[in-house]
Amino acid sequence: MSEELHVNPEFPTDIPYRRVLDHGFVALVDVMGEDSSIVQAARVSYGKGTKTMRSDKALISYLIRHRHTTPLEMVEFKFIIRLPVFVARQVVRHRTASINEYSARYSEVPDRFWAPSLGAIADQDAVNRQGRADALLDLVEALPDPAGDAVACAYREDETAVLVAPDGTGISRAALLEDAHRIEFAPRFSGNADDAGMLPTENYLWWAERLLDFFPERKEKMASIRARYQEHNERSYALYQNFLREGVAREIARSVLPLTMYTEWYWKMDLHNLFHFLRLRMDPHAQLEVRAFAEAIGTFVKEHMPHAWDSFANDGLDGVFLCRDEKEVLRPLDDEAQREVLQGLYERGYRRRRLKETCRKLAIDERIVDELWPPKGDGA
Amino acid sequence: MSEELHVNPEFPTDIPYRRVLDHGFVALVDVMGEDSSIVQAARVSYGKGTKTMRSDKALISYLIRHRHTTPLEMVEFKFIIRLPVFVARQVVRHRTASINEYSARYSEVPDRFWAPSLGAIADQDAVNRQGRADALLDLVEALPDPAGDAVACAYREDETAVLVAPDGTGISRAALLEDAHRIEFAPRFSGNADDAGMLPTENYLWWAERLLDFFPERKEKMASIRARYQEHNERSYALYQNFLREGVAREIARSVLPLTMYTEWYWKMDLHNLFHFLRLRMDPHAQLEVRAFAEAIGTFVKEHMPHAWDSFANDGLDGVFLCRDEKEVLRPLDDEAQREVLQGLYERGYRRRRLKETCRKLAIDERIVDELWPPKGDGA
Amino acid sequence: MSEELHVNPEFPTDIPYRRVLDHGFVALVDVMGEDSSIVQAARVSYGKGTKTMRSDKALISYLIRHRHTTPLEMVEFKFIIRLPVFVARQVVRHRTASINEYSARYSEVPDRFWAPSLGAIADQDAVNRQGRADALLDLVEALPDPAGDAVACAYREDETAVLVAPDGTGISRAALLEDAHRIEFAPRFSGNADDAGMLPTENYLWWAERLLDFFPERKEKMASIRARYQEHNERSYALYQNFLREGVAREIARSVLPLTMYTEWYWKMDLHNLFHFLRLRMDPHAQLEVRAFAEAIGTFVKEHMPHAWDSFANDGLDGVFLCRDEKEVLRPLDDEAQREVLQGLYERGYRRRRLKETCRKLAIDERIVDELWPPKGDGA
Amino acid sequence: MSEELHVNPEFPTDIPYRRVLDHGFVALVDVMGEDSSIVQAARVSYGKGTKTMRSDKALISYLIRHRHTTPLEMVEFKFIIRLPVFVARQVVRHRTASINEYSARYSEVPDRFWAPSLGAIADQDAVNRQGRADALLDLVEALPDPAGDAVACAYREDETAVLVAPDGTGISRAALLEDAHRIEFAPRFSGNADDAGMLPTENYLWWAERLLDFFPERKEKMASIRARYQEHNERSYALYQNFLREGVAREIARSVLPLTMYTEWYWKMDLHNLFHFLRLRMDPHAQLEVRAFAEAIGTFVKEHMPHAWDSFANDGLDGVFLCRDEKEVLRPLDDEAQREVLQGLYERGYRRRRLKETCRKLAIDERIVDELWPPKGDGA
Repeated sequence: MSEELHVNPEFPTDIPYRRVLDHGFVALVDVMGEDSSIVQAARVSYGKGTKTMRSDKALISYLIRHRHTTPLEMVEFKFIIRLPVFVARQVVRHRTASINEYSARYSEVPDRFWAPSLGAIADQDAVNRQGRADALLDLVEALPDPAGDAVACAYREDETAVLVAPDGTGISRAALLEDAHRIEFAPRFSGNADDAGMLPTENYLWWAERLLDFFPERKEKMASIRARYQEHNERSYALYQNFLREGVAREIARSVLPLTMYTEWYWKMDLHNLFHFLRLRMDPHAQLEVRAFAEAIGTFVKEHMPHAWDSFANDGLDGVFLCRDEKEVLRPLDDEAQREVLQGLYERGYRRRRLKETCRKLAIDERIVDELWPPKGDGA
Repeated sequence: MSEELHVNPEFPTDIPYRRVLDHGFVALVDVMGEDSSIVQAARVSYGKGTKTMRSDKALISYLIRHRHTTPLEMVEFKFIIRLPVFVARQVVRHRTASINEYSARYSEVPDRFWAPSLGAIADQDAVNRQGRADALLDLVEALPDPAGDAVACAYREDETAVLVAPDGTGISRAALLEDAHRIEFAPRFSGNADDAGMLPTENYLWWAERLLDFFPERKEKMASIRARYQEHNERSYALYQNFLREGVAREIARSVLPLTMYTEWYWKMDLHNLFHFLRLRMDPHAQLEVRAFAEAIGTFVKEHMPHAWDSFANDGLDGVFLCRDEKEVLRPLDDEAQREVLQGLYERGYRRRRLKETCRKLAIDERIVDELWPPKGDGA
Repeated sequence: MSEELHVNPEFPTDIPYRRVLDHGFVALVDVMGEDSSIVQAARVSYGKGTKTMRSDKALISYLIRHRHTTPLEMVEFKFIIRLPVFVARQVVRHRTASINEYSARYSEVPDRFWAPSLGAIADQDAVNRQGRADALLDLVEALPDPAGDAVACAYREDETAVLVAPDGTGISRAALLEDAHRIEFAPRFSGNADDAGMLPTENYLWWAERLLDFFPERKEKMASIRARYQEHNERSYALYQNFLREGVAREIARSVLPLTMYTEWYWKMDLHNLFHFLRLRMDPHAQLEVRAFAEAIGTFVKEHMPHAWDSFANDGLDGVFLCRDEKEVLRPLDDEAQREVLQGLYERGYRRRRLKETCRKLAIDERIVDELWPPKGDGA
Repeated sequence: MSEELHVNPEFPTDIPYRRVLDHGFVALVDVMGEDSSIVQAARVSYGKGTKTMRSDKALISYLIRHRHTTPLEMVEFKFIIRLPVFVARQVVRHRTASINEYSARYSEVPDRFWAPSLGAIADQDAVNRQGRADALLDLVEALPDPAGDAVACAYREDETAVLVAPDGTGISRAALLEDAHRIEFAPRFSGNADDAGMLPTENYLWWAERLLDFFPERKEKMASIRARYQEHNERSYALYQNFLREGVAREIARSVLPLTMYTEWYWKMDLHNLFHFLRLRMDPHAQLEVRAFAEAIGTFVKEHMPHAWDSFANDGLDGVFLCRDEKEVLRPLDDEAQREVLQGLYERGYRRRRLKETCRKLAIDERIVDELWPPKGDGA
């Protein structure tokens, strides 16, 4: 961890970290176990029986999609996280974490407060009582588009044009709109975001801030809000400092600080509960600021446990739960549709055993699997 | 609770109970809360905003299908359960229960041991390494069926014929086969089972035992196995009693008793964790004997919390999770199929808000909802 | 609950509550179980053996002092609590609670903020890095005391003099000092506080505020601090309101609010964990404001579960843990001292069984018990 | 781990292990953290303030004796344990463990069953309804001792005489009796037991078996009981094997096996909960067979975390809780006794800060500390 992130001399250095929001970070302190630890623990249950039947990757996928989650508990991740209190208040509700937090009773609070970036500020959502409107979508839709072509222009930091004049280079409004939709409805941890070096929330905020350039009035309003945040943070901190100078006990003085205050903690969780946490907090309905931390945590898990992450992404994060009614309304697939579903999965690498699982979910006749891909004796 | 079920004079009487297996039972001791308690706790989160927007039933359904599970934790169920140790060893793994168990260190173990009913005994499954074969299915398929008609005959306790001669009354082999399949693939808590006064596992065992009459040799084998269980139970208990008579400490003597031994415990769990427990233990992959207890527990929950149960059944128990690949292969529904899905749900009582949720799951264009059922201003 | 405490129309009325600090309260919503529920659950472990051997009260005491805590889990308390965020942040760390909190993403935050009462404001403690100085003790010690007699005067609300002129009525400085010490070192839930209708923290704050009258300069300083709290609360709330008026999403706007903000939640916990919570949060080292809530919670537990509370007070809250070294240094009591200890306990109602427990703790020869109080055949 | 302990080829080799009872073992698979990890996590709470004030060892001791247990949660131990089912049923009640157990539904149970060693068999205790009598104490007290001298003889495996003829070598009956008492009332994890290479339960069983040589009749009775255990285990396993041969599903067949059956599991727990587990399961009231496993687990914790273990032993395991009444009866120490207590602790390395903690526990005037050991300015 670089010098400036040190909180105190006791903190570990030389550990991988990722910055989050304006002053936050997620740093990986320690891990117990790896993909093979899941397999090892699972195999104590299965005894000798399964030892050659599946690869480790296939076994992990089996465990995750059948909710045999106890082997995932055998892996532990420990992070140091610096995050605003209004985010910490959401994260702390995950009671399966072990936490040691910076104590403002013991020590003076440093001068670090969150203020929203211009792209993060949004109106209350008109429909969803819980969240903010999709600022990026609003902006894209509001872009002028005479003659059906893009006329505006924005650049990523690597100078790639994203919206250009109608000579054909760059991205069209329609494509950007689609991209915005992708971000909105699948702001999940994706290969694309990795390639770009930006997580979904980072990507979203970057675009939103760029596009504000086309709307000077709106940008000015956002800047005003942000300025008032900063002023309020400063004034609050000054009051706190005054109280300390007058001798007021820290445990009393701290209560004037706003929820934008950054705190810091050790945060440890096993992989089963970590996946549960990520599923809830990387969800589009989670507040953008908590998603930013969840995504950063996810990068470390993905890197350290590639097999478990792949299965989590496919069998947990990016799947969908159909209720009984939806299932029943959807299921009477005709014969052709049934074959298309199976064929599509086959092309994605699914074989007989997994295809039959799908058959049971969708009321597809399992004999179609036998007919299309006759068993070769190994049953797998 | 009737006299014979009393374990000791401290036990509550006059509480509702249900017998399970040969000597077991589930008895409801106490409940904290009801459907309205969930609503009450949820509304503290939502503040004034939602108070008139949804009925209690709709709010409970919303909470369950969006995995907002903390309000469900506000309800607690407390049972006394008598169950064999090999079942208890599975149930105890649900760590969110509070348990007080009969102690064989303190008190002498009574003479109560499980022996499988004839219908419960089955071969190891040929495919599933974890479980037993489907004895009932095997029996139905093996039934003689000359000339395509049923010739055999079995009766339910209410004297309804289930398989009769070809005069047209009773159930045909094909229908019974279908019924057996229903039991196999949906041995869930269903209205039908309720009507019949029998839970799915009870129903299954009843049929399996009836059909054994058509296979005398097999029945004899099952009877022999059962007899050896009983003999082993008796011999083990006699050894235990001898040790006690010789003065051996109870905590040592008890270890010779087999896993068929019945134990007894107070078992308390909140509704959120209870639903999780039921989802796992009413599943067809769970061992039949633990399913029998889960179903019995479920009857009490269903009766006491009808709204929560309905939503749990639709949005949890009987739903299906599609992984990302399955979702993507399935989702490109053509326009006609999209309309059929929405229409089907509409007929089941789904309205605009819920239909749009489905649209997002299945990548259906939400504008179809607006087109088919134009908003009337209330947005619901 | 009186009208003004209603948060929204869904909230239960007619439930017992107790005000805490300036705008907070603790209200009891529901309880599962009572003293006898503990006994009932414990006796399933003991089977028939113990049924007549002990009274319920003695059994509960036995369970608590031997840390057989699972029967305590069979009792659940559910509260609604309104508390400042800086207090809530401490309480939420008790992960065994089920919580549903008011959501500032869904609903607008009402205008309720904590400001310290004049008696609560104190300097940082000179020794204890974690807490505030003992303001009351400082004040008492600083009281003028010419000629060894009290000259100052203060009144409780019931007009009882606490410090009066030297005519003999009222309380002397020495007595008040002792009373202050009692509060400092045993600010536990006591009969006295109950009699007075004031909990220890209330009592403490009341005295501290009264005594400030004798120190006008100090009082003025406290009043200035309090005024700046109120001003800061108002200014922060105004900024929040402005943001909302400008359309900023609630989930963003709320983060400018200070930690003094009151929040509200349903909070449910079983008795075992509740006692653990109370032991930690009624401790003198806990922050005064969290102690105030813990004491209020304790009043409901004490009233509803008198036997369990008595034992908790004697065997948990007010006891002391001696480490091995302390135990070994203390234990070589001479014969006379041993007899005095046993005699003292006998006078407090301890009989043979409990006295022998004490013998084992303090390395007292158990035969002294037999000698002083010979067994009468019943062994108890 | 040596070859014979392998359960299947997936299991880790080359990990430290310790045999327990006849066929059991405890093997350490992985650890996250060490003593310094506790310190690291604790210091995030304390910020910069404490960094030079205490050594790591002193900080760990402070955390443990003040029940600041969250930093202990940052350390995790993962074991493989093979243990009899009747022991596993007690261990599984510690719900903070993560467990993956051998499944007798998936795999055939191997032929490994517990039978008590001759020294382990004991009568029901006459007083304690929960446990067995102290066989070793009975034997020592029953030893013949003509003329006040030892006449019998036994040897430890290292050929050290423990009871010899009256020439003076070896151990006298009185000394053995005292040793037996030590074992009975402090069968805790001690330096002595370590030196001898035997844990307390091993030591106890070894002595009990040696002394049986002096009581041929009693030995014969024990041998008969043990033989019937072995015969019952064999007969039960033969029945199980027969069922499997006849094709009965494993999940059904296994239920005839007795509670003496060995099972195997991965078992992971954080250090805070591990200490709690050890405190309960190394206690003399715990069943001897579970104590044997707890002690073996403790050896690994002690070796890996020496500072934390030292503090746990002093401030947890070997301490004593005095209830309010005991405290109050004991506390009015006279001035001389107060000084003796403090002096005794000083000789054990206690200094001003810790001595004042003791003063508060025992109502000793803190000024005595200042008088005996005047502050030198650093306050520590």
